[in-house]
Amino acid sequence: MKQAGFSTYLYANTELDDDLIRSITENCRSVWYKKNEFLLRQGDICRQVFFVEQGLLRQYSIDEKGKEHILYFAPENWLVADRESIFFNEPGSYFIQALEDSKVTIADQSFINNLAEHNPSFLTFNNRLLHNHIRHLQKRITQLLSATAEERYLDFIKIYPDILLRVPQAMVASYLGITPESLSRVRKDLAQRHFKS
Amino acid sequence: MKQAGFSTYLYANTELDDDLIRSITENCRSVWYKKNEFLLRQGDICRQVFFVEQGLLRQYSIDEKGKEHILYFAPENWLVADRESIFFNEPGSYFIQALEDSKVTIADQSFINNLAEHNPSFLTFNNRLLHNHIRHLQKRITQLLSATAEERYLDFIKIYPDILLRVPQAMVASYLGITPESLSRVRKDLAQRHFKS
Repeated sequence: MKQAGFSTYLYANTELDDDLIRSITENCRSVWYKKNEFLLRQGDICRQVFFVEQGLLRQYSIDEKGKEHILYFAPENWLVADRESIFFNEPGSYFIQALEDSKVTIADQSFINNLAEHNPSFLTFNNRLLHNHIRHLQKRITQLLSATAEERYLDFIKIYPDILLRVPQAMVASYLGITPESLSRVRKDLAQRHFKS
Repeated sequence: MKQAGFSTYLYANTELDDDLIRSITENCRSVWYKKNEFLLRQGDICRQVFFVEQGLLRQYSIDEKGKEHILYFAPENWLVADRESIFFNEPGSYFIQALEDSKVTIADQSFINNLAEHNPSFLTFNNRLLHNHIRHLQKRITQLLSATAEERYLDFIKIYPDILLRVPQAMVASYLGITPESLSRVRKDLAQRHFKS
């Protein structure tokens, strides 16, 4: 089974020095969550950031009609948090839930704030995360406004190459903003075209 | 005609002290853009932040099929920039265009970076802008995944109370991700219900 390490992630994606990375990982803890368990519930104030070492999470909301809307999936090596709730110190709009048994590294926001305040290279890293998140959200909006079901599906495979095999089709369709029937049709069409060529 | 001042905006929305606000506004310049003029084009690297003193801008992309997708409208008192392009120093995906003759205060990104580096209260303000942007984008995704045409329209009026009278209906429909016909129907339905009650 795939496993990602938080320190490996930090070495690969930041310019933090060894001592700081050691100090960060020493201040985090690892927790196993069972499939379907919640790391955060809608209405709670988020005070932690989660790094997925193993398994799969999703961040989603439930609207007044009881319908779920998935903001994103988070497989190994993803950082997850309700950044809105953390920053504004307000009850959040999202659930964060394990879709598989998942091993998660948890960093407390107070520790992260402290780092960002005293360490410019950590601040730069945190800023990159924020802007990456903005980039991802903006792309998704453009896609929801314009892309066909097939384009959405192909883009999904690029972002999440192996998630298709790990979550129910209905959840993928919900993420894409299309019906499960439309998703089936797209997959069938693509398989047929691929077979012919 | 409405007019917003950048220093008034800074006094109202930040905790920056008088000297700093004076220094910021002294380092900005005001430019008039004619209706339809571009402040930024898709493919350019964005190096400036725009504050709308008077008039109306929009940030939008054009897809491969030539279709426009509006990320947002920016009336008086809005700050506008292609934050993705600025941060990653990459050619941007968006146009920023004046939809009316507009008076815009321009701040160079290099000046802003310098401020953020040396001034914690400016950094906090900039962080709040980023998180507000994230909040807005996340809400929009949930809405595009779930809301009915009427819900989208009502939400639009809340965010942009007076834009309906200032832009073509087709542009509003495009922002909402619905057809102009559907927008007309929603407006007619709401007007009738309002009249009856």
